[in-house]
Amino acid sequence: MSGDEQGYVDGGLLSPGWAGSRVEAAVSDLAYVQALLDAEAALTRAQAALGEVPADAAAAVTEAARTEAFDVRSLALRAHAAGNPVLALVSDLKAAVPERHREFVHRGATSQDIVDTATMLVAARALALVLADLSRTEASLATSAAAHRGTVMAGRTLTQHAVPTTFGLKAAGWRSLILDARDRVRSVRESLPAQLGGAAGTLAALGSPGVVAAFARETGLAEPALPWHTLRTPIADLAGALAFTAGALGKLAADVLTLSRTEIAELAEGTGGASSAMPHKANPVRSTLIAVSARQAPALASVLYGSLVAEDERPPGAWHAEWQPLRELLRVVGGAAENAAALGRDLRVDTDAMRRHLDLTDGLIVSERLTAELGAIVGRSRAKEVLTSLAARVRKGEGSLAQLLAEQPEFKHLDLDALTDPARYTGAAGALTDRALERR
Amino acid sequence: MSGDEQGYVDGGLLSPGWAGSRVEAAVSDLAYVQALLDAEAALTRAQAALGEVPADAAAAVTEAARTEAFDVRSLALRAHAAGNPVLALVSDLKAAVPERHREFVHRGATSQDIVDTATMLVAARALALVLADLSRTEASLATSAAAHRGTVMAGRTLTQHAVPTTFGLKAAGWRSLILDARDRVRSVRESLPAQLGGAAGTLAALGSPGVVAAFARETGLAEPALPWHTLRTPIADLAGALAFTAGALGKLAADVLTLSRTEIAELAEGTGGASSAMPHKANPVRSTLIAVSARQAPALASVLYGSLVAEDERPPGAWHAEWQPLRELLRVVGGAAENAAALGRDLRVDTDAMRRHLDLTDGLIVSERLTAELGAIVGRSRAKEVLTSLAARVRKGEGSLAQLLAEQPEFKHLDLDALTDPARYTGAAGALTDRALERR
Amino acid sequence: MSGDEQGYVDGGLLSPGWAGSRVEAAVSDLAYVQALLDAEAALTRAQAALGEVPADAAAAVTEAARTEAFDVRSLALRAHAAGNPVLALVSDLKAAVPERHREFVHRGATSQDIVDTATMLVAARALALVLADLSRTEASLATSAAAHRGTVMAGRTLTQHAVPTTFGLKAAGWRSLILDARDRVRSVRESLPAQLGGAAGTLAALGSPGVVAAFARETGLAEPALPWHTLRTPIADLAGALAFTAGALGKLAADVLTLSRTEIAELAEGTGGASSAMPHKANPVRSTLIAVSARQAPALASVLYGSLVAEDERPPGAWHAEWQPLRELLRVVGGAAENAAALGRDLRVDTDAMRRHLDLTDGLIVSERLTAELGAIVGRSRAKEVLTSLAARVRKGEGSLAQLLAEQPEFKHLDLDALTDPARYTGAAGALTDRALERR
Amino acid sequence: MSGDEQGYVDGGLLSPGWAGSRVEAAVSDLAYVQALLDAEAALTRAQAALGEVPADAAAAVTEAARTEAFDVRSLALRAHAAGNPVLALVSDLKAAVPERHREFVHRGATSQDIVDTATMLVAARALALVLADLSRTEASLATSAAAHRGTVMAGRTLTQHAVPTTFGLKAAGWRSLILDARDRVRSVRESLPAQLGGAAGTLAALGSPGVVAAFARETGLAEPALPWHTLRTPIADLAGALAFTAGALGKLAADVLTLSRTEIAELAEGTGGASSAMPHKANPVRSTLIAVSARQAPALASVLYGSLVAEDERPPGAWHAEWQPLRELLRVVGGAAENAAALGRDLRVDTDAMRRHLDLTDGLIVSERLTAELGAIVGRSRAKEVLTSLAARVRKGEGSLAQLLAEQPEFKHLDLDALTDPARYTGAAGALTDRALERR
Repeated sequence: MSGDEQGYVDGGLLSPGWAGSRVEAAVSDLAYVQALLDAEAALTRAQAALGEVPADAAAAVTEAARTEAFDVRSLALRAHAAGNPVLALVSDLKAAVPERHREFVHRGATSQDIVDTATMLVAARALALVLADLSRTEASLATSAAAHRGTVMAGRTLTQHAVPTTFGLKAAGWRSLILDARDRVRSVRESLPAQLGGAAGTLAALGSPGVVAAFARETGLAEPALPWHTLRTPIADLAGALAFTAGALGKLAADVLTLSRTEIAELAEGTGGASSAMPHKANPVRSTLIAVSARQAPALASVLYGSLVAEDERPPGAWHAEWQPLRELLRVVGGAAENAAALGRDLRVDTDAMRRHLDLTDGLIVSERLTAELGAIVGRSRAKEVLTSLAARVRKGEGSLAQLLAEQPEFKHLDLDALTDPARYTGAAGALTDRALERR
Repeated sequence: MSGDEQGYVDGGLLSPGWAGSRVEAAVSDLAYVQALLDAEAALTRAQAALGEVPADAAAAVTEAARTEAFDVRSLALRAHAAGNPVLALVSDLKAAVPERHREFVHRGATSQDIVDTATMLVAARALALVLADLSRTEASLATSAAAHRGTVMAGRTLTQHAVPTTFGLKAAGWRSLILDARDRVRSVRESLPAQLGGAAGTLAALGSPGVVAAFARETGLAEPALPWHTLRTPIADLAGALAFTAGALGKLAADVLTLSRTEIAELAEGTGGASSAMPHKANPVRSTLIAVSARQAPALASVLYGSLVAEDERPPGAWHAEWQPLRELLRVVGGAAENAAALGRDLRVDTDAMRRHLDLTDGLIVSERLTAELGAIVGRSRAKEVLTSLAARVRKGEGSLAQLLAEQPEFKHLDLDALTDPARYTGAAGALTDRALERR
Repeated sequence: MSGDEQGYVDGGLLSPGWAGSRVEAAVSDLAYVQALLDAEAALTRAQAALGEVPADAAAAVTEAARTEAFDVRSLALRAHAAGNPVLALVSDLKAAVPERHREFVHRGATSQDIVDTATMLVAARALALVLADLSRTEASLATSAAAHRGTVMAGRTLTQHAVPTTFGLKAAGWRSLILDARDRVRSVRESLPAQLGGAAGTLAALGSPGVVAAFARETGLAEPALPWHTLRTPIADLAGALAFTAGALGKLAADVLTLSRTEIAELAEGTGGASSAMPHKANPVRSTLIAVSARQAPALASVLYGSLVAEDERPPGAWHAEWQPLRELLRVVGGAAENAAALGRDLRVDTDAMRRHLDLTDGLIVSERLTAELGAIVGRSRAKEVLTSLAARVRKGEGSLAQLLAEQPEFKHLDLDALTDPARYTGAAGALTDRALERR
Repeated sequence: MSGDEQGYVDGGLLSPGWAGSRVEAAVSDLAYVQALLDAEAALTRAQAALGEVPADAAAAVTEAARTEAFDVRSLALRAHAAGNPVLALVSDLKAAVPERHREFVHRGATSQDIVDTATMLVAARALALVLADLSRTEASLATSAAAHRGTVMAGRTLTQHAVPTTFGLKAAGWRSLILDARDRVRSVRESLPAQLGGAAGTLAALGSPGVVAAFARETGLAEPALPWHTLRTPIADLAGALAFTAGALGKLAADVLTLSRTEIAELAEGTGGASSAMPHKANPVRSTLIAVSARQAPALASVLYGSLVAEDERPPGAWHAEWQPLRELLRVVGGAAENAAALGRDLRVDTDAMRRHLDLTDGLIVSERLTAELGAIVGRSRAKEVLTSLAARVRKGEGSLAQLLAEQPEFKHLDLDALTDPARYTGAAGALTDRALERR
């Protein structure tokens, strides 16, 4: 039995990040065929609205334009001959309407009008799912940020403890990036245009110029200023917004992966992925799958940006090369967003571990603060010298920073316990968190 | 003598697309050092404005912050130890101010505050040049589009003549894409934020929270909602806008390259690149160099999108990996924009060649039109059949489409000369051109 | 009915370059599941060969390891929980063997052992198809090159006629690049290793170290020197060989696309892709689809090279991010190779058009030759001057190069017709073609 | 003062990974100009060897072909007009030899012959440096692997402790990957060909066909089978080998970064990068800079793979787009190799920390082993059940795995201390290390 017969050329076996997700269904072959049919039907209705096609023809086409009646796989196979599936689809759609209406199917349009419009419909539907999951994610993170406004933890730079920060600020930062993604996705989604230009974008076979506006209305998409057969702004904008979203979610996942490490364990996914070999393992699978998306998305987007270079009135390759990468980009980002919503919902925070780790450097985590405090007494540059040398001794295990400072006569009058308390050196973390949470 | 000694590690020998361009200077090492110094000076002035630093210290730092006094190459070499050039720069800047002011240099800041702010300053300056060149380009194209509103030429799809179009519509399309680029670049440029967060983004060593607003004011950049050490929205937005612009210009270049081919020669750059071997050659060098930018930009942008995944409060690699690709992206796009402005200005249009080529297919270029016209007489599907079979005969050289149609009794009453005249089948090209040119 | 129910999440609707190709089947979900099962069965047989597992258990597992009995889509869906499909597969495989044999399934292995081995099996099978199609392609091109050893045509550089060349040399060059691809694919195919390391690559639960060799033998793959869970040489080598092949085929396609242009028409695909709007169109669809592969492959390969950075003993993302891009790369390259074999077979050469175009520049195409010939009389630099100025006049239409040269007293004694005959200026094209065709 | 005047367009300020490295000098503008001159001189000598050029002309050209006499920046600036620097270089080189020899400069060659040959010369020189640094790195790692053959540490998968491994095996794995890189770089380096084809690759103006072999001999590069103006195998092979090397070094860096984290601290770079804000910081700067290279290289390589699609006899863009990405790839990989050699040399291993962390999971790190051992008593599936439930209790802090197992009557007779001792569960790690170290 071939993959064909069982029906699974690619059912996501290698893509656990999106297999079974809602976005998978929204961008499936079936969904694309429906969108292609929607485009054909909308065209006939638009032409009927302008009186160029009989109303009953438009009704018949709309009635016939239901995926169930089409053999999706056959369309895929027959797409090879023309280089796209529209010729085969139009032939099947004609066969599905009464003979007298056939001549009104696909009238004046070119394949690209239908493929591009369908792509925009599919993108709009998929982005709606992405937006919903981004909302879920940011809502969970807002709750987390507010709850942990005062939870002090180590700030880490270049893998090393730097100065204290709060988990609230970290979560607020994640959310802020996700809101940036939301804004970009939303803005692109609202601008997605219908495509209608005819063979070479002059509308020559399409009669009244009003047809574009009517067609856009019927599809629910924006009306384009010009046919965009080779002016690929909508595709490039999708590339940018989706690559951005993958990266925004990837930042969240990267932090969860780091903070879930056995030695750190300040965060846990809450549900753990099992191992085939080790009964004890609880792997951060959701973050892993989100990380996958962030690794794949920039390369997919680069193919789409490359396709802006679309020569002539329809290029031999640049256009065709967009289709699958764009679908894959929608899929990996949609899957990542769905995983992120679940991750945000179930994330467990171990505040004890966070507190404990602040002491790992025996006070060095506040060395910056001490530079300022001691600097006020002995000058900044002398203070830095002292602290650099004490830091070396602390690292050798000769004592904590507070202990070694207490040995220095010039500093022993200071309240060294307070000054070296990481929890008292979080700067504006609280205020920044509040401010970030005001954003809606 | 080493490259070092002569001073040219990379002076653009392999980058004729940007060597000597204005953007090259705007993003040179020298320009970055100046921007780093501008950031340091702005910080001191901001702190002075808040009363945290003496006014004369701010004045002294601002006075000292002039690239001429710094050894740029030495900063590059000393950057290795810390992984970025700020530690060395701060040391040199301190040495350049009177001793009593030294402690006020770089106070409370972290290296990333300075590097990121400098990057935004450099980007803002480079994007201003890009915008100016995009304006020049679109202005030339607007003139071309208006002048050639009625210049009929072959529309080409998948390398083959499809239906007629006009050069006016083509030029209006190029312009439209460039205006899209302009809008994206402008919008990003206006949003570029200053960076100030201190060691881990809590502003802990920076005193009053008002310092961020004051700093932004001094730099002329936007005030960020949060420190964005690991919330890399501005970098990703630059990546998207620049990859878009490279592609938009690349579309123009691709069309010029195609239409400049010896066999087509409908366009010429006006100035030709010489060959080292062939005295007769006049190569379309500007388009070639713009095409280079469009080939390199998506990959560079993909590195920047990948850097959104910035773990912790400062990542070991994702941040550092942004610097050179972003500079290179600014350079290749800036160079392409400068070349495009010249290309647009000097472009030569051979309207005779355009007209002549419309006859290359012996009338087949209007087969779409005939499908509709004959369809009205014998039905669409029969019309298509007839035309498909006549098209094969035309291709075999048995006559022009008009001639072969005239042999068919049912069609001989038609005004076949008019119906097969390419110049009378340009649809809404004129109206679309007008509409596109209304956009400012 | 969902895409799921009808079975087409992704049946190649947007990928006419590979939908229905043999490689599609070789890398389908079904094929991967079979390869996963093959890996599990081979492991049990290897352990049986070493006496660590009963022979009848190995036989039972091998018997059960047939895709038909497994629900492929269910495996895809259940992969989400563990992040890969092996846990679910092992569970189903255990259920498919008699209870007493269950404990011998997946013994000592980790999920990655099975996924990686299966990936190598799938890759080996897919590469065999690629190699067969590359052979077909190069054979056709060899025939073409030999047949057209003396067919003179314009050599074109930077879009302009440069000097004459032959179609034989061009076809020999295409073939040479395809042989380079074949060599790289073949070499990688022969080196593909089995994977067996256990939970963290120490073979700790796998008993005798001989198990790796035995396992490799059972799978037919190479024995690895070390478990390569995070030493991803085989994946990176596949990336390189496949990106190379896509590019090699892409060069062929790019030339066919260019030379098929309506104005050039020196080549034709022989079968033309139809248009939904224009009855006369015969689009170069195969070249277009090959070009798609060449546009997508480098980005896919870049994800795989990026996955070399696989931290720890199994990374959270870098590994998982390989799967789908590698499958897609196999698919797009396999599809391109299949299209190239057909393209090579059916390619039509219009030698008349080639000959005709040699005259398009009125003799300028041999300006390089004249530089040498005239240089022998008046010195090279003077010759270049003369020719540059005559070239300008030729371009203005003042006469052919031979005519204008004949007006110059110092050159009129030359046999200008012979010297400006493009057919007599093909240099070593014939000899180079012969030499290239000797390669097997 | 412009960047131009001070001489630093790009002196590596933003590239601390390669600024000041030996490879930087090997690929500088100066080095490229020298290589261009070397190619010109070699051509004249090759022609002299065949008697086509006077011996004293060849000597004069060789004598003149010294970078010191050329204005490198001027060549870069003048490259714009022709799209490459050769026309300007040839003009300057002619001016630098006695008038009677001028006509023998660049005779019969095309710009691409010189640029491509120079690129191969530069690549060969840069790869020699890379190979030397890979050798240093692998030698240090071999020493480390041997010294730590028995140093037990936690194996980590998906961020979690999995089963024990050894640092010896880990270091041997790093080395193995670096040897793979070495083999690929070495093999490409040995195959780098000279380029000589003349205007369109037919050698038409180059006289005797023996000139290619003679030219290759003079350059020290391999003799190509065909001119490879548009058969870009050498460039693609460089792309693959360099992207591989960047990833191989990136794997090492990723592990060092992870294991240097404050909470893990099993490794340290030995030299720490300082911070501008925090006196205590010792950042893993070398690993960070190596990680940068691994992030940038795949995208750069993707541009080069994309350039395989080089239409005609010289493409308008694909060729030119190779130059800077290839140089940058050589630079980032060369810099990474130099950093890796230092990293390997200075790396500090904290075996106590490694040992200590093995206990972090209270015995769970050997759960796989227990599955087998308990399975032999109660059956595998029951054993897995028991262990999964005990693992949950261990994680709740109810005791170590050994303690909880001891409470189970059926297992209390086992030597649980031995069975749960991580140091006794390293499988074939030692043998695998030995085997890996046999490779030279």
